[in-house]
Amino acid sequence: MDSKEVRNILETGLPQNTFSTPESCPYCEGREGETPPEIHAVRYPGTVPNSRGWRVRVVPHYQPVLQIQGEINNRGLNCYDLMNGIGAHEILIEHPEHAKDIPDYPHGHLVDVLTTMQSRIADLKNDLRFRYVLAYKNYDLSHGIPHAFSQIIATPITPGQVKDELINARQHYQIKERCIFCDIIRYELRSQDRVVADNGLFIAFSPFASQYPFEIWLLPQQHELFFERNAQLDALADILQQVLRRIKRVSGDRGYTMVLHNGPNIKVSQRRGYWKTIKMDFHWHLEIIPKIAWPLKYEPILGFAVNPVPSEMAAQILRESEV
Amino acid sequence: MDSKEVRNILETGLPQNTFSTPESCPYCEGREGETPPEIHAVRYPGTVPNSRGWRVRVVPHYQPVLQIQGEINNRGLNCYDLMNGIGAHEILIEHPEHAKDIPDYPHGHLVDVLTTMQSRIADLKNDLRFRYVLAYKNYDLSHGIPHAFSQIIATPITPGQVKDELINARQHYQIKERCIFCDIIRYELRSQDRVVADNGLFIAFSPFASQYPFEIWLLPQQHELFFERNAQLDALADILQQVLRRIKRVSGDRGYTMVLHNGPNIKVSQRRGYWKTIKMDFHWHLEIIPKIAWPLKYEPILGFAVNPVPSEMAAQILRESEV
Repeated sequence: MDSKEVRNILETGLPQNTFSTPESCPYCEGREGETPPEIHAVRYPGTVPNSRGWRVRVVPHYQPVLQIQGEINNRGLNCYDLMNGIGAHEILIEHPEHAKDIPDYPHGHLVDVLTTMQSRIADLKNDLRFRYVLAYKNYDLSHGIPHAFSQIIATPITPGQVKDELINARQHYQIKERCIFCDIIRYELRSQDRVVADNGLFIAFSPFASQYPFEIWLLPQQHELFFERNAQLDALADILQQVLRRIKRVSGDRGYTMVLHNGPNIKVSQRRGYWKTIKMDFHWHLEIIPKIAWPLKYEPILGFAVNPVPSEMAAQILRESEV
Repeated sequence: MDSKEVRNILETGLPQNTFSTPESCPYCEGREGETPPEIHAVRYPGTVPNSRGWRVRVVPHYQPVLQIQGEINNRGLNCYDLMNGIGAHEILIEHPEHAKDIPDYPHGHLVDVLTTMQSRIADLKNDLRFRYVLAYKNYDLSHGIPHAFSQIIATPITPGQVKDELINARQHYQIKERCIFCDIIRYELRSQDRVVADNGLFIAFSPFASQYPFEIWLLPQQHELFFERNAQLDALADILQQVLRRIKRVSGDRGYTMVLHNGPNIKVSQRRGYWKTIKMDFHWHLEIIPKIAWPLKYEPILGFAVNPVPSEMAAQILRESEV
């Protein structure tokens, strides 16, 4: 984007988002030609790529924030660090129909979505240029009903907050010889105060002193570093659907953000000869933040967060909602 | 707030904000009785507290997020840490008139505002329960024109991001025996690529690889740890007004967030006998983020940020704007 384009956007405002109505949505079935060619799809037998007949479809982002081709070329510039914007940026279209979201999917369809996510993450981790694969979903109903999709971004660096989380989890492991997330799960299961759902294999709870109202963490109860290695997608689909239905019911259906906190691409570190205890010291999980407007709207400032709804109350309200 | 109130708010939506019109704004001159009694004010001679005749006024927040009275009582609860919500939460009302903001103030008035901020921070740091004093302003024009005010929150902990920034700056100092911010200032002055304003005593620039479009950092050019010790408020008012006028011109006047990154309350640490090199290893500054709507709206995810406007381009556009 050049300086003139930037000035134009500042003066005339944003181009209208055309993704919010089925009439103009390039992610709806039948408009496969309007996206870049598909990378991966779950399809009915006898259908061909980039045509009708898919259930889940992955395409490159039409305006990727990172480019797939080239070398990273990590270098210094005076007191700063530079690298090329190399990476992958994919859109995982979750359903062929507009206006459907996770709470509406048939159970088996959500399993297809989760399997596709696993497959893309595992594939991107074969590329040794990428240290981390971000997977998240920003489902925002404030400007019409969008087509449900997730984003997958493979990055040549470990993003700052992931790094902090990995380092903190490792420090706990080094002192206690136990995973901090396993400790938390054990305590939450015993106390039950913040538990929203528990199906024996997964737990969903409102984390202690959560930063956001009705924030939810969802974890496998058995220790596991990598989301893409999880073999219990039936149970995951079950609890995820239950949690999002409760959130939808309670929050007035404004949408949510869901971020996968996953183990990094250890192939990169293994090749360089470090990273040993990794298998034990992190535990993948989903963090879900409902889009709830709230009178005391304090964005976290410098890491200081104000949440008017205690986690225990949020969990209780969610548990008592009908699903 | 009890569970029933929370359910009510979720069902019926938010109470209307009555602070956005002069008719119902408790911060306007003449409505001093509608706020809690003032803590501090800059007043014309002969006027009395909690009546007309003030230029700048500080009052407790009407719904404080922390309570001023009590002990912190730091304690553990199984694997978690707890402390009481002790602290101060104050509103610094910047001007007696509604709809005026920093770009409109007479120069001397802005100096009064800055002096008041210094005085409140210094006073709160005499309370050894408080490790940090947050000062920030969220000036949002998206729902009408608000009364301009800043918030001051004294906290019994150092907020997470402040801690990270202090630790990173200290690591640089330990290796180089130089302040990292002084290094950055020297480089930015030499290269000029990202400089927006420079009046000899202060510099404002768009930081290298900034996270947000048109983000600005404003620092004293001479090394200084504490905002409240700065004696050059004339020069600070000058550059702050210039920068905010440029932002207003360029961004279509949607408002901004401004956060003071300041040295912590070292009296707490000094009393406990640690914290030695502190004077050199941090450098107070303001971080300003204009509220610019943008087509590629990626919120930073896990610390990975996407900014479509390079810092160099943002600085050039701001430099070339009329003030």
